[in-house]
Amino acid sequence: MDWTPLIETSRGPLVECQHWGAVAVTDRDGRLLAHAGNPQVRVFTRSTIKPFQALPLVQSGAAQDLGWGTDELAMLCASHSGESFHARQTARMLASAGQGPGALQCGQHPPLFTQLGLADVALEVGDTPSALHHNCSGKHAGFVAYCVRHGLPLADHLEPQHPLQQAVRAALAQVTDTPEAELVMGIDGCSAPNYALPLQRLAQGYARLAGGWPAQPATDAALRALADAMVARPDLVSGTGRHDLDIMRAGRGDWVSKTGADGVQVVGSRSRGQAFALKVLDGNITAQVAAAVEVMAQLGWLDAAQVEALAPRRAATIATVRGRAVGERRPVLQLQWVV
Amino acid sequence: MDWTPLIETSRGPLVECQHWGAVAVTDRDGRLLAHAGNPQVRVFTRSTIKPFQALPLVQSGAAQDLGWGTDELAMLCASHSGESFHARQTARMLASAGQGPGALQCGQHPPLFTQLGLADVALEVGDTPSALHHNCSGKHAGFVAYCVRHGLPLADHLEPQHPLQQAVRAALAQVTDTPEAELVMGIDGCSAPNYALPLQRLAQGYARLAGGWPAQPATDAALRALADAMVARPDLVSGTGRHDLDIMRAGRGDWVSKTGADGVQVVGSRSRGQAFALKVLDGNITAQVAAAVEVMAQLGWLDAAQVEALAPRRAATIATVRGRAVGERRPVLQLQWVV
Repeated sequence: MDWTPLIETSRGPLVECQHWGAVAVTDRDGRLLAHAGNPQVRVFTRSTIKPFQALPLVQSGAAQDLGWGTDELAMLCASHSGESFHARQTARMLASAGQGPGALQCGQHPPLFTQLGLADVALEVGDTPSALHHNCSGKHAGFVAYCVRHGLPLADHLEPQHPLQQAVRAALAQVTDTPEAELVMGIDGCSAPNYALPLQRLAQGYARLAGGWPAQPATDAALRALADAMVARPDLVSGTGRHDLDIMRAGRGDWVSKTGADGVQVVGSRSRGQAFALKVLDGNITAQVAAAVEVMAQLGWLDAAQVEALAPRRAATIATVRGRAVGERRPVLQLQWVV
Repeated sequence: MDWTPLIETSRGPLVECQHWGAVAVTDRDGRLLAHAGNPQVRVFTRSTIKPFQALPLVQSGAAQDLGWGTDELAMLCASHSGESFHARQTARMLASAGQGPGALQCGQHPPLFTQLGLADVALEVGDTPSALHHNCSGKHAGFVAYCVRHGLPLADHLEPQHPLQQAVRAALAQVTDTPEAELVMGIDGCSAPNYALPLQRLAQGYARLAGGWPAQPATDAALRALADAMVARPDLVSGTGRHDLDIMRAGRGDWVSKTGADGVQVVGSRSRGQAFALKVLDGNITAQVAAAVEVMAQLGWLDAAQVEALAPRRAATIATVRGRAVGERRPVLQLQWVV
């Protein structure tokens, strides 16, 4: 059985709902440290691989040539909320590559903050939703910039056979110690090629992103720059009220946290050189975040202030509309220790 | 294992998400006809028991004494969208019992149509969200009316020991052939006592609601009146763009369909005297509806027009933001036939 209960809700004396999934915890060498369910289960990585999709741009020096620093590198890795400051940053990145929003091939969806029902967020007056507000627009601006800097055609730059996507694929395979032939491709919602990996391999990639990869100095420098940017600007990577922002703020620079659609979450600890990847089989994002916090707790990553900061994400009271507690959402996963 | 995969989504060549659950199909005598997963699994019934929560009011003659007909009986069973016509109907019911909105003890939540992101729905000008717009307001208006007509105190009418709630409990036990001692109580979001039942018992209750219960003429008449009302006014029971409305319209008077929170769905066929109850363990409503349509298909309830009408609920293409098909949502449950 690949999957195990991670999170459940109760009502009165009974369990009412359960969210099943799997977790893998590894170090930078990919050694499995702990798991729940099958750590080898192969899951589509979705937006968790954005830092690796940015590797060709950063490692080739093209980002530096464009004068891109912390903000731009954070945006490359973002599944942002589509707030006005995200759209503006993407527009600046495109402009610095001599391009405009029309070069983005991600399409346009209502800003994520509206889809997530984040009521306290609004676009600035005069800002109109466009492809710049697509949650992946930063990644796509990076794709466009890579093509411009390397003299590659823009028209087909999301095709799996395009040199950019081949470079992305090679980078992902390298950093996750996965033979390219074992990467299973699917197309993500933003039209970019995406890849399925065993959870353990995805965790290893994040252990290297967070903790470095001394054996590969060139890749190590690019990974470090991307991780530095993510923890410096989690508001760009994520958005107002979002969980990756909360987690990275609580981590005070140590945790590199990234959500992926349909229940994927990865968090790496820079000080420990370790990371975990998890998938909630049903894709429920509340359970995904709760499981991530519980894994951090069981790994001993949380001090008292961090326990408190993340407590509402980890568990919650289920209440009537009038506010009486009638059940709870709680973690039930138990990490199994390997070494 | 109580649960089995009901619905899954794919991306490229792989399964990306799965929704597990269980299904029980019975006749009016409670005989199990088919199942997926464990038909005995005990689930909180949530809003599916609204017709049974209305039985004391209808069976005692109080609803008739109030002059309540089709519209009022449909509202008693509703998990309505909180549209203006729903709120107006509830206000009329309360007024006919000499009460106002202040008698409702359900509390106030944003109208369901806003929570469900149904963009084409809006409140009428001058209509302000109140307890009347709570999705359970019709049921609660019935509770209030029962107390008024029977001279019972209103202040504590949601307490499990109140004579109204005791009458509800007895009615639920009777119609589902479940000993009262086996009803497990929890408090629903609307503050009313709710009960957990084996799926097979819940299905039996709906087989009787849809198909009648000749052995118990008094209950039979009340069940018939409630089922007649539900199929006559599915727009009151549900709301614009909602699945119970779509299903009951597609059923042309034969199907009594009712959603319950957190993944519960029950549908009875009046012509067949059969019903099924299902629970999606993770509470996903899209999977809940898809599974219900698939069960109807496997039971042979659907003619060609009904297959077509419900096809988008049963399965769907998963597409990029730009509209390219990259995966699908599809049913994978297989009913096991018992007799």
